[in-house]
Amino acid sequence: MALFRLTLAYDGTDFLGWQSQGRRGDARTVQGVLEAALGRLADGARVAVAGAGRTDAGVHAVGQVASFDLPRELEPGDLLRALNALLPEDVRVLDAQRAQAGFHARKSAVSKLYRYVLDTGPIQLPARRRIAGHVPWSLDEARVHAAAVLSLGRHDFASLASAGHSVKTTLRTVTRSEATFAAVEEPWRAGGMGATLVYEVEADGFLRKMVRSLVGGLVAVGRGALAVEDLQRALEARDRRCWPAPVAARGLTLVRVDYPSSAR
Amino acid sequence: MALFRLTLAYDGTDFLGWQSQGRRGDARTVQGVLEAALGRLADGARVAVAGAGRTDAGVHAVGQVASFDLPRELEPGDLLRALNALLPEDVRVLDAQRAQAGFHARKSAVSKLYRYVLDTGPIQLPARRRIAGHVPWSLDEARVHAAAVLSLGRHDFASLASAGHSVKTTLRTVTRSEATFAAVEEPWRAGGMGATLVYEVEADGFLRKMVRSLVGGLVAVGRGALAVEDLQRALEARDRRCWPAPVAARGLTLVRVDYPSSAR
Repeated sequence: MALFRLTLAYDGTDFLGWQSQGRRGDARTVQGVLEAALGRLADGARVAVAGAGRTDAGVHAVGQVASFDLPRELEPGDLLRALNALLPEDVRVLDAQRAQAGFHARKSAVSKLYRYVLDTGPIQLPARRRIAGHVPWSLDEARVHAAAVLSLGRHDFASLASAGHSVKTTLRTVTRSEATFAAVEEPWRAGGMGATLVYEVEADGFLRKMVRSLVGGLVAVGRGALAVEDLQRALEARDRRCWPAPVAARGLTLVRVDYPSSAR
Repeated sequence: MALFRLTLAYDGTDFLGWQSQGRRGDARTVQGVLEAALGRLADGARVAVAGAGRTDAGVHAVGQVASFDLPRELEPGDLLRALNALLPEDVRVLDAQRAQAGFHARKSAVSKLYRYVLDTGPIQLPARRRIAGHVPWSLDEARVHAAAVLSLGRHDFASLASAGHSVKTTLRTVTRSEATFAAVEEPWRAGGMGATLVYEVEADGFLRKMVRSLVGGLVAVGRGALAVEDLQRALEARDRRCWPAPVAARGLTLVRVDYPSSAR
């Protein structure tokens, strides 16, 4: 028996998210294909995998972390190569390590970094449909920056929690909330393409659809549909109906998960 | 009757290239879906479209140019909106203009710019499979730069021409041949991802698979399989069998087509 920790990248387009679904056992999930591959390495034994972030359908990862007990001895490098040979090509293992006793990919995590890429303007480049969200408006940079600052710090994010959530607390501490804009060269600007917004947000934890809701807030303020003060009030209302709708999953990537050095 | 010029972007993944195939009339091509959409705007009349670059299956575009005579009057802005409503979402019209009499998207072009994106190292990020090529080796930057310089200027590129080509001359003038490397952050470097090579090449014309063959040459020299002098000799041999194999289509994008100001 050996406890392992993997760093994973995946293209979320063709997955129904990270987590295997109880009643929808035939749904293609990242956890599901990973557990199937590990089962083959464990001579058919069931290997239960924990993931740091339960990414939704369509959400990508370049730094998801998973942990599991494997009922056999294996060098981490051999495990990495064996898994990459067994896994479908839209999931890759980037790193495999032995984990310290007690390590749990989700419970041991102290913070996570997500990135959302959003193309703006009337037209989105077709090759970016799978990896970037899109809104047809142009966004005011100064307003987006002002809206991004609102979520910094410790807040009750109940207004951004998915309906029917079952978490104990909706308090989260956001330690980074940064929007940057990449300019568009001619002739694409003339062709209706606006700037690309890249939003990075780091926190000690995220509610379901929280990042996509945060970006929905940036969009509402950036396009002028909502004043920054309205967004502030929507946050303080702790009511999902007050906050703008979340943006599409396809622009979202789980970038990094951090652990205390004692857990490594 | 009005002569139009369009600037197009497309995701080449699900197309069998630009050009409609004579005997394979049911193949999905960019020209085919464009002519079908124009046919609907022309009350069923056949509208023949010329494309500046006959991109192969899997090759993308952000600045393809197309020209055609439309047998009706239409404002360019209305044509753009009508086409984007009729076209599948993996093709977008970025710009529509009236063209001067005699304009032909391919024959009037004086130069084209292509970009090839190549991920290196044992592992490629899954979300990049459709938009970047991949080689499992790491490439030596100085050697790649030296190989890129070779193709600058006027040369007989017969060694890079696809077998069975029917062009009159294989002489082409390359005015830009630049390789840049984007570094990889941790933890992806540790996870086996190497730098990304972005290669931009501009010329007065390209032979079939010429850009992908040029990148094949950069890879052969960059990984140390071939000396720069060997590649020089392979170019001078004017024999396809002497030059390294082309890389995959999915990393290639037609970026821009230039016309003399008199033709605009």
